[in-house]
Amino acid sequence: MTLYKNFSFEITHQSSTSRARTGCLMTPHGPLETPAFIFCATKAAIKGATPQQMKEAGTQIILSNTYHLMLQPGGSLVEKMGGLHKFMGWDGPMLTDSGGFQIFSLGHGSVASEIKGKRFGGRRKTLSKISEEGAMFKSYLDGSEHLLTPEKSIEVQRQLGADLIVVLDECTPFHVDKKYTERSMHLSHRWALRSLEEFKRGDTGRQALYGIVQGGVYPDLRREAAQFVSDQDFFGHAVGGSLGATKDQMHEVVETTMSFLAPERPVHLLGIGGVRDIFNGARHGIDTFDCVHPTRLARHGGALVRADYWYEKGLISGKEHITLSNAQFKEDARPIDETCTCHTCQNFSRAYLYHLLKARELLAVQALTIHNVFYMNRLLKAVRQAIMNESLSCEEKLWIAQE
Amino acid sequence: MTLYKNFSFEITHQSSTSRARTGCLMTPHGPLETPAFIFCATKAAIKGATPQQMKEAGTQIILSNTYHLMLQPGGSLVEKMGGLHKFMGWDGPMLTDSGGFQIFSLGHGSVASEIKGKRFGGRRKTLSKISEEGAMFKSYLDGSEHLLTPEKSIEVQRQLGADLIVVLDECTPFHVDKKYTERSMHLSHRWALRSLEEFKRGDTGRQALYGIVQGGVYPDLRREAAQFVSDQDFFGHAVGGSLGATKDQMHEVVETTMSFLAPERPVHLLGIGGVRDIFNGARHGIDTFDCVHPTRLARHGGALVRADYWYEKGLISGKEHITLSNAQFKEDARPIDETCTCHTCQNFSRAYLYHLLKARELLAVQALTIHNVFYMNRLLKAVRQAIMNESLSCEEKLWIAQE
Repeated sequence: MTLYKNFSFEITHQSSTSRARTGCLMTPHGPLETPAFIFCATKAAIKGATPQQMKEAGTQIILSNTYHLMLQPGGSLVEKMGGLHKFMGWDGPMLTDSGGFQIFSLGHGSVASEIKGKRFGGRRKTLSKISEEGAMFKSYLDGSEHLLTPEKSIEVQRQLGADLIVVLDECTPFHVDKKYTERSMHLSHRWALRSLEEFKRGDTGRQALYGIVQGGVYPDLRREAAQFVSDQDFFGHAVGGSLGATKDQMHEVVETTMSFLAPERPVHLLGIGGVRDIFNGARHGIDTFDCVHPTRLARHGGALVRADYWYEKGLISGKEHITLSNAQFKEDARPIDETCTCHTCQNFSRAYLYHLLKARELLAVQALTIHNVFYMNRLLKAVRQAIMNESLSCEEKLWIAQE
Repeated sequence: MTLYKNFSFEITHQSSTSRARTGCLMTPHGPLETPAFIFCATKAAIKGATPQQMKEAGTQIILSNTYHLMLQPGGSLVEKMGGLHKFMGWDGPMLTDSGGFQIFSLGHGSVASEIKGKRFGGRRKTLSKISEEGAMFKSYLDGSEHLLTPEKSIEVQRQLGADLIVVLDECTPFHVDKKYTERSMHLSHRWALRSLEEFKRGDTGRQALYGIVQGGVYPDLRREAAQFVSDQDFFGHAVGGSLGATKDQMHEVVETTMSFLAPERPVHLLGIGGVRDIFNGARHGIDTFDCVHPTRLARHGGALVRADYWYEKGLISGKEHITLSNAQFKEDARPIDETCTCHTCQNFSRAYLYHLLKARELLAVQALTIHNVFYMNRLLKAVRQAIMNESLSCEEKLWIAQE
């Protein structure tokens, strides 16, 4: 049986000056123009938007988290309900992760909590034990113990039925030494082979498997990991593991890793979705990105803005978002962005959004989510166009205020 | 200057067997087919739905509360932003209340808190003092003291700019005696005359004023109040004040009050919106209803269901709603209502809604709000059709399971 016969990845334009490319990734639920942003429907729902609103805001693809769904409502219930697409009413391309990230990031402590000196981010440690077999963890719902193995992860992802699925790996934290990173990488490689075997065993032709490139911040390990995944029958690759402690280091790790990967397969950058990070990733050939940032930001009153916002104020640099609960917006009759054609910018003023946030109205979250989702889809469309026009650096200045 | 020249109310069908009628109420923001349900956008936002979603769910008209908006963001800010229609992105018919209800209901304590023995519903008393001039009250936001007079209420409602506006009255609680009710009614009548005078003084032709029929549960007082409002230049009438302590008493008070009102003007029933109450109201000639129930119910996991739901279970009676967080829905692949064409019923199963509620996902509120709004609009459409067909009692059996 031929693997991935219902999938394809075509590079539609390859930049002559960088690794940047545009592509078309075909799935059983339709095509995906790349580079693309994948929105996080963590528990089988986008926080603050219906599938219809996501579509209207230009969304091509979403993801759900296997960790959350395997605990509730459970993979077999979702399967019984006809799979995740039907369960949540999303008929476009979809990705699920392996479930490992939540277990390990909460277990090891995240980069953010590391910096803040909180080893577990103030939350209960979920990881109990890593063994050759898999990872023992405690449910965030009731503390019950579960074992996640590479085979189990594939099994649950098969029940969920997303188009793109991912092998289980150990997400190594950034503060460990090279030796730990190397050992961990080799464990992840053995898990990847088991994942692939389980994938092939139950393959229905409706899913495509991504291998993960580990290796932390170490170029020689990244090279070895890149070679490993390229040698296996994966449909695509995901850049994972520790990407460093700073944005600059992350951009460097992405660049290094991408230089080791052959260009044929699509590459996903796990959990990264800042505007600057997307320009950097796209420049080095990343095809898909995911991050909770746009929708989480909305829940905190933040709206993504383009560079114009700062240039109009006479500034030459500025953040990627504004916070609408700021008193300066109280009587501001303009939309978030006058050039934006999203439902929110077409109907609501900054003053109204300020009012909604002050009044703690649910609609504030919906309105800001719709804007941020639309913004990201508009951004990625602009990135694709700019790659075709060889004008990525020029385009970047429209989105990030910079000297 | 002719009052209400941009408004009209045409009775399109008058039942030959009851006071029930269908009508068309024309406003500067379009027509309203009656009987109609008015949804509560308390603080200039429907909790859980965008204006677009409200329109898609068949909504004709919404209301906002003057009490909340005068305190935040304030009438003059809304006016500066182009009025409430523009501010909140709603271009259909709209009503505002006088602001009195919140002051008095929180001040006196509601019927519900009365029954539960909580005089102020566990909340801070807002009413400070009623005088001939108006009502002194404390802001729910910061405790600051404000005076709401009939003139002030009209002024704020003019700044907000809704199509249909309402005179300030004292909302008498149901536990007071007849003497108090009569005194209160006469105060409300003097306030109504002042409201009307202020309305005429600043009339722009873009608003129509409703007078309120007071009189509590006493038929002779209701008759006097009905005569009073009919003698004044109101565009429409609203049935207010105490409607009694039970549903049956309320239905009786509505029937009695309606028997005293001439049929020419549209009549609104304040704050009532149960399914049974709507059939009762429509039967006695009520043209519009409002209630927070459908949207509030959604926030508590409740979905309105038709009688079929119970009949299919072999039951001959049942509640007007089901609660989707009930374990019986965990693996139920059916929509809330198989005959419902709302976005929620077309896309989501009971099992998915159960999951969303268990996972505390925002989408649960949106999905249930959309269903309940659609349900109410569908109900009122069915009521209008049934009035035209003289089949209201028959229609009622489809919506309320009953012997």
